[in-house]
Amino acid sequence: MSQTPIRILGVDPGLRRTGWGVIEVLANRLTFIACGTVFSDDNEELAHRLLELHKGLTEVVTRFEPDEAAVEKTFVNKDATATLKLGQARGIAMLVPAQAGLAVNEYAPNLVKKTVVGSGHADKQQIHLMIKVLLPKADPKSDDAADALAVAITHAHHRTSHNLAAVLKRSS
Amino acid sequence: MSQTPIRILGVDPGLRRTGWGVIEVLANRLTFIACGTVFSDDNEELAHRLLELHKGLTEVVTRFEPDEAAVEKTFVNKDATATLKLGQARGIAMLVPAQAGLAVNEYAPNLVKKTVVGSGHADKQQIHLMIKVLLPKADPKSDDAADALAVAITHAHHRTSHNLAAVLKRSS
Repeated sequence: MSQTPIRILGVDPGLRRTGWGVIEVLANRLTFIACGTVFSDDNEELAHRLLELHKGLTEVVTRFEPDEAAVEKTFVNKDATATLKLGQARGIAMLVPAQAGLAVNEYAPNLVKKTVVGSGHADKQQIHLMIKVLLPKADPKSDDAADALAVAITHAHHRTSHNLAAVLKRSS
Repeated sequence: MSQTPIRILGVDPGLRRTGWGVIEVLANRLTFIACGTVFSDDNEELAHRLLELHKGLTEVVTRFEPDEAAVEKTFVNKDATATLKLGQARGIAMLVPAQAGLAVNEYAPNLVKKTVVGSGHADKQQIHLMIKVLLPKADPKSDDAADALAVAITHAHHRTSHNLAAVLKRSS
């Protein structure tokens, strides 16, 4: 078992607001490091908004130097336009840690909820409550930051099996 | 009227294949500069594929130094997963020229077809034929590269009104 803590970046992507959270995991112990939200301005052109997200997330990666990254794998079912918007933001959220050389894992929202709350149908409030239990020092100011911490926690719980799968895939 | 040619980058984004085309416009005269396709490897993780697209498009922007950029505004109606994939690739296609400080314009596929072929319902073959007419020296090797040139041509035709709208928006 590793004796050096692994620092994990979790991201909950969105065009208007992208939540991020950084935690450390050592054996089964989780430690809160930081969390926040990167905003993009509704009044700006799309390309400029994506640039704002890219800059904000790059600052987070540069400042907190995570070892691994995890991004929520959501799609919006209501309409194609909303899904396309989310996809564009998500592309940036996946790109930034990849540019820093990190492995970027993806987790579906119901796995995140199930891992953190114990049920795939948990609401935002239940996620907030469990974040306070699992990371007592965390004080996420937004649902997006709380969700990002939940994604990071999910990766902390599943990373060993994920890494094993990657090793098996490479050696096959 | 400007006496310096304006160099335009057109992009037809896709996760597997992103087409690009560079043209110059001086008054009403169009000149072909280059076109091609950036591929990403199906077998790689999503984040790595987005990194490949980012690297490939960044090379194009660095090499050809366009003044303005235009990206096709497509969405896939068949399913949310496909639309999300396209959105992720499109996020990268919008980001790269924005990182180089270029204005990034978006054009809907039917406007591209209408501008290049004269009908909003033109097929791929008609676009290829008109590219040969409008840019005799162009020899796109793929539909994606041809589409990217069509997007660049569309911007060449609409850029004056676009730029005027941007000026009006800024001064209002």
